[in-house]
Amino acid sequence: MRWSETLIPTLRDDPQDAEILSHKLMVRAGLIRRLAGGLYTFLPLGLRALRKVEQIVREEMDRAGAIEVLMPALQPREIWDRSGRYDVIGEVMFKLRDRQDRELVLGPTHEEIITDLAANEIKSYRQLPRTFYQIQTKFRDEIRPRFGLMRAKEFIMKDAYSFDLGWEEADASYQAMYEAYTRIFQRCGLTTRVVEADTGAMGGKWSHEFMVLAEAGEDGLVECEACSYAANLERAERAITENGAGDETTGGETTCEVHTPDCRSVQEVSQFLGCRPDQLIKTLIYVIDGRPAAVLVRGDRELNDKKLARALGTPDLALAGDDVIERVTGAPVGFAGPVGLDVPLYADNGLKGHRDGVTGANRENYHLVHVDLDRDAAVTAYHDLALVREGDACPRCDGTLRERRGIEVGHVFKLGTKYSESFDACYLDVKGRRTPMVMGCYGIGVTRTLQAVIEQCHDDNGIVWPLSVAPYPVLLVLMDPDDAAVAEHAARLQADLSRAGVDVLLDDRNERPGVKFKDADLVGIPIRVVIGERALAKKSVEVKARTEAKPELVPLGDAAVHITGLCGAG
Amino acid sequence: MRWSETLIPTLRDDPQDAEILSHKLMVRAGLIRRLAGGLYTFLPLGLRALRKVEQIVREEMDRAGAIEVLMPALQPREIWDRSGRYDVIGEVMFKLRDRQDRELVLGPTHEEIITDLAANEIKSYRQLPRTFYQIQTKFRDEIRPRFGLMRAKEFIMKDAYSFDLGWEEADASYQAMYEAYTRIFQRCGLTTRVVEADTGAMGGKWSHEFMVLAEAGEDGLVECEACSYAANLERAERAITENGAGDETTGGETTCEVHTPDCRSVQEVSQFLGCRPDQLIKTLIYVIDGRPAAVLVRGDRELNDKKLARALGTPDLALAGDDVIERVTGAPVGFAGPVGLDVPLYADNGLKGHRDGVTGANRENYHLVHVDLDRDAAVTAYHDLALVREGDACPRCDGTLRERRGIEVGHVFKLGTKYSESFDACYLDVKGRRTPMVMGCYGIGVTRTLQAVIEQCHDDNGIVWPLSVAPYPVLLVLMDPDDAAVAEHAARLQADLSRAGVDVLLDDRNERPGVKFKDADLVGIPIRVVIGERALAKKSVEVKARTEAKPELVPLGDAAVHITGLCGAG
Repeated sequence: MRWSETLIPTLRDDPQDAEILSHKLMVRAGLIRRLAGGLYTFLPLGLRALRKVEQIVREEMDRAGAIEVLMPALQPREIWDRSGRYDVIGEVMFKLRDRQDRELVLGPTHEEIITDLAANEIKSYRQLPRTFYQIQTKFRDEIRPRFGLMRAKEFIMKDAYSFDLGWEEADASYQAMYEAYTRIFQRCGLTTRVVEADTGAMGGKWSHEFMVLAEAGEDGLVECEACSYAANLERAERAITENGAGDETTGGETTCEVHTPDCRSVQEVSQFLGCRPDQLIKTLIYVIDGRPAAVLVRGDRELNDKKLARALGTPDLALAGDDVIERVTGAPVGFAGPVGLDVPLYADNGLKGHRDGVTGANRENYHLVHVDLDRDAAVTAYHDLALVREGDACPRCDGTLRERRGIEVGHVFKLGTKYSESFDACYLDVKGRRTPMVMGCYGIGVTRTLQAVIEQCHDDNGIVWPLSVAPYPVLLVLMDPDDAAVAEHAARLQADLSRAGVDVLLDDRNERPGVKFKDADLVGIPIRVVIGERALAKKSVEVKARTEAKPELVPLGDAAVHITGLCGAG
Repeated sequence: MRWSETLIPTLRDDPQDAEILSHKLMVRAGLIRRLAGGLYTFLPLGLRALRKVEQIVREEMDRAGAIEVLMPALQPREIWDRSGRYDVIGEVMFKLRDRQDRELVLGPTHEEIITDLAANEIKSYRQLPRTFYQIQTKFRDEIRPRFGLMRAKEFIMKDAYSFDLGWEEADASYQAMYEAYTRIFQRCGLTTRVVEADTGAMGGKWSHEFMVLAEAGEDGLVECEACSYAANLERAERAITENGAGDETTGGETTCEVHTPDCRSVQEVSQFLGCRPDQLIKTLIYVIDGRPAAVLVRGDRELNDKKLARALGTPDLALAGDDVIERVTGAPVGFAGPVGLDVPLYADNGLKGHRDGVTGANRENYHLVHVDLDRDAAVTAYHDLALVREGDACPRCDGTLRERRGIEVGHVFKLGTKYSESFDACYLDVKGRRTPMVMGCYGIGVTRTLQAVIEQCHDDNGIVWPLSVAPYPVLLVLMDPDDAAVAEHAARLQADLSRAGVDVLLDDRNERPGVKFKDADLVGIPIRVVIGERALAKKSVEVKARTEAKPELVPLGDAAVHITGLCGAG
């Protein structure tokens, strides 16, 4: 492809709306253009790189035995009602009506459609296992689309769904996908970290996320410095090292109400009373499944409500409003405490054995001190509820956890029978009994993966494409396109490379060399070949890898073979 | 791929909602499944065939120098307001709102998006010409989705857009696409007829449709029996052979009002008066650009309102309501006539020189006879307004037109500067003057093309895929998959074919041979190879083309080469 005949509109300046480097580079290198918030057009170079990622995904899915299908983006509301997710997914799903006033949605994912298909088409144990996948456009009504393709309203996903005879067989399908994902991201040139993850609106039993580590990542995760433990912050556990806030000498005293005028926050109270924040028992009033409850964490920790939801086995929970708090505690907001409350009390494991604690007194402007949680309050249950943070103890070994930022590029779920039961997706087993299929689901953000590659692979001058996903492996720069010898040698080299299966982008523009070299670095083609008078005088061309600082002279006669070798092709 | 490990759910019976054969076959052969009206899931075989069509389209677009991009399906309303098409396209466009209450549409086409892109990125004559294309999902809120993929709510299109310096250059781009289309449909194994077509909501100056001739086609077209003239019925012209209804002996009499109680239709009036229908002048009251007008055609002809719109240069026209008709004619509906009307009169060319005519008298229960149109009425203009029909004279030669039915699979338009002007898509010419780019647009219904192939290529037993778009070129049927010799020879043959680049579908099911042969015919793989004990005893396999009645015995040692040769590969 000739640069002069395609569309590669490189820019010197960063686009104003781009916050992260990969987004800036995608626009500056002429890979994408913004149509509206969260909506992008792929220009020729961007689309070529996207297709490379897609093809890697497709090959590895096929290799893992998954079967490609293609499901509609437009879906009737009824199918989402059957799983109950029309309400759970809520506002993030685009909704519309057709001219007969039937409700439709734009699919943010396809569990419902594929399970309905499996329910209709898979009848017998002989037809299992099956894993179906598709590479399809998805839609999400993001509150705040940002970061280019990272959080877009329209994006491309590879989603896969496995159907198995039972749980053990489902584990094997999960494992096959897990391994395929590992290969996919490796082949894309990405360094990923696999973390334990929350299952969220997807439901299901267990899941892993594939994270590209990057400062700009939207996801927090922790990893152990010593062992292989790693988890999304939403999911992460810790070993409990807290051992009650008081020590032996301070325990045992009876609780005592103290006047704490206008002190509501942990900081205000600890400052006023001259105690440590970790002595406080933070008491949060929640409404869980429609009924009020109190949730307790130590004053120096945050509650992780995803973990709360999982511990209590319900997604239906939210902080209570002021009116509920006042009704439950008998006091204004800011003075809640566990002592004497007549609602279920759920406490974080870190509060086990907590003595000499400080809590709200359920009375305006008063707190309790010398609280011994187990003695003074009726804790319904202890769970792991606190948000994990840098420095916490690893739950698997003696190591310490550290926090990282990551971009979620893949997610694998063990779904179990949640959807098969909603859609009556059953097979007849060897004995003729109807049995629900056990499912897994597996997603890769294809457009997001493309951008993640750039987030990981760039330098100050631009993108540094890995060969596997580069739009072209080779950029042939003509120093003076009007020079007949230059043009002729370029044409011959391009033809030789083409025969060897190497696609070439030919910079034949009438631009200054400086502009061309800047653009070459910006668009980041892995191998740059310069054909100009100076090298031709030595019967050579200049070959430079994007990752190297200096070019090397390669004799004209060897150039095609040499470059083909660099591309790993031929 | 093994049949036992994929999903090919063939059916013995026709689906109840399928009206045309290709739709029935797509469902019965397990290519697609219906999710809801106009929404289909592609199963593995259907998707493979679809990808083959896509790839042919892509190769020919690339060969013609078009550049692939990918634009969003979700689009802000504002961009459709800029071209004025938000209102013109109207209800067929799906509309929705995001959570910030911004209006979005699902793109039924992408002229607006690409022109906006070109306006931003193309600045100079040096960047022209450019033709961009994409293969992308489109959405249409069809009143009545039907015929499977033929008229679906969600479908895949290849759309392309050319930008040129001027009209002559645009003609060359149009011609390149026209030729690419011809090759594409040929390669898909389709026989198409190129017809002149109406430009409709697309606007523009000129267009051709590529029609697959088929009884089940939704489009009417005419073609000349003698020359190459062919046109969509919406567009078709005819040579005028009418020469006034009256002959020399009957002309010249003065008009006369006759009582025609309750006679309104052409049939009623001609029967009552004992005259020929072609003597009548049908008078239709229209509202054109907000003002009433009368449109006249001979009693035996129908008005073509697309031709009326084109002749008058406005899309804004519709039959008038009863109140307008009564106000304009002074009579109830059914008695309108051109004599004495005080509105513009547009008459079909077939009425030129019409004498001894019969028309409504603009008075209840009265008609006029002996009307000489030019003498008695003030015709504003004569145009070609009548719908052409079988037996009309060709407008290009002495031949006769015949009517056919077709499926529109491709459409090429000369758009001119309609969109460039709306979006200020201008370039600086050699002298630095801002000049609007001249555009063309070019569509192929990719999913529709796939189904059109089946509509043209089938027999009583099922699909007869052309090699070029067959999901697999070769079906290897194992008579007894549990027989070790059969399995071993099949594996070896499959490996040999795979090395030669021939994809094989392996029917390894434990089904009776009759079932397998029926399915083989139904799914229509071009080359069927049967491996069974009987042929193996002769050290041979049975090879049968889907188009042939009888198999031939091919020695095992020659099988791979023989079959590869049949596939045109290797």
